[in-house]
Amino acid sequence: MTTTGVPGELILLRHGQSTTNAEGRFTGWADVPLTPHGEQQAVRAAWLLGRDGLVPDLVHTSVLRRSIRTADILLSHLDRAWVPVHRTWRLNERQYGALTGRVKREVRGEAGPSRYQAWRRSLTEAPAPLAADELARLRADPRYARLADGGPPAVESLADIVARVTPYWADVLAAQLLTGRTVLVVAHGNALRALVAVLDRLTEREVENLNIPTGAPLLYRFDAALRPTVRGGRYAEPAAARAAAEAVAVEGHD
Amino acid sequence: MTTTGVPGELILLRHGQSTTNAEGRFTGWADVPLTPHGEQQAVRAAWLLGRDGLVPDLVHTSVLRRSIRTADILLSHLDRAWVPVHRTWRLNERQYGALTGRVKREVRGEAGPSRYQAWRRSLTEAPAPLAADELARLRADPRYARLADGGPPAVESLADIVARVTPYWADVLAAQLLTGRTVLVVAHGNALRALVAVLDRLTEREVENLNIPTGAPLLYRFDAALRPTVRGGRYAEPAAARAAAEAVAVEGHD
Repeated sequence: MTTTGVPGELILLRHGQSTTNAEGRFTGWADVPLTPHGEQQAVRAAWLLGRDGLVPDLVHTSVLRRSIRTADILLSHLDRAWVPVHRTWRLNERQYGALTGRVKREVRGEAGPSRYQAWRRSLTEAPAPLAADELARLRADPRYARLADGGPPAVESLADIVARVTPYWADVLAAQLLTGRTVLVVAHGNALRALVAVLDRLTEREVENLNIPTGAPLLYRFDAALRPTVRGGRYAEPAAARAAAEAVAVEGHD
Repeated sequence: MTTTGVPGELILLRHGQSTTNAEGRFTGWADVPLTPHGEQQAVRAAWLLGRDGLVPDLVHTSVLRRSIRTADILLSHLDRAWVPVHRTWRLNERQYGALTGRVKREVRGEAGPSRYQAWRRSLTEAPAPLAADELARLRADPRYARLADGGPPAVESLADIVARVTPYWADVLAAQLLTGRTVLVVAHGNALRALVAVLDRLTEREVENLNIPTGAPLLYRFDAALRPTVRGGRYAEPAAARAAAEAVAVEGHD
């Protein structure tokens, strides 16, 4: 932790592999656990942070167990189980609507490569919403009982996620970074894409081409105006992260 | 969660068995893990809460891993990993000073039954403080870097714990209960004795005779003035808790 006017460091981490990641399914707000491999990724992420002297003072997760468990494992392995953790729906994965639980390869086969890619990567497109009974179940979930803006969404575009992540960035994360703390955000592929879009002021085209792999710590440093000193941040293991991001880009293609 | 003027329910839980519990040692602020049996106690506590329909809306732990891990396991087994958890040093175990890490049976043998019992159970007595190097190590621990009142204590009596728990009760726990939430506190034998002393306005003699076993949920309900409806609360398994409390009372006696 720095004590002068220099902002703290921000570490972004996508949760380790979940059971539905392993099955090649769209997950969204389905609350699935990590696989044993995903738990190992969390241990490895802790090792990387320790190696680089990046020890979180404050942690943020979604309200989905795959990010919560990743943070718990990571903090435990850094001997920092006591660090304050804030859990918020604003860092949840994208609500994938009717695609939730579907196998990506099958969706791509049915919808064709172009619509499939638009659903996955474009800023504004969204698939069909959740069925009414699925949405009703979500509305009855106590973790979503106090949401502003009319309760849990039936589907989201990436732009919708940008809209819910932006106030969390401005009111919470930025405020903490300006006190010089090292802040860790453990979240999801699309929540982190949205956050990076805000941090780096990405163009629509840049957002579409951004892929974030599981379990790979991504570090941002900032100038006094909280602009990233390196656009896109810096992965703890750049070559491995690049390869894993490319694998995310072609998910469902075969 | 109730929505009218009736206060919420308070569940007190001492963490499951730690490695030093198993060895019969004074633990205090030493940050030791749960044993496998202690993890199983957390699972069982979750089952008891689920059986009784006591599902926490908010959770509080100390900054010691045995309470943090107990809460994590319990919430995960209640399918409530997303519940907000606040971690505070005010719920830490008693700072046992020079007794930290010592075997209880040996201390009893050296000091005699009367002083041993006074150190363990009286309201105001305290053993010798931590050695200077141990205290320096504690002061350098980042989790205690922001404590008010001159940093981490070198030793505490039960009255000192009452003094640090009381504001947490008044400012945080009571305030949350008055909103009708179900609040779970996962803490330590002496932190919970102090909290119960405040809740039930125990006499000095009553405090001395109070023993709280590991892993046994203790439920308090309140009237509108936040007085317990049943003094001493009600254990989820009264007979088992009574037997376990008796075992706590005679720790180190043989």
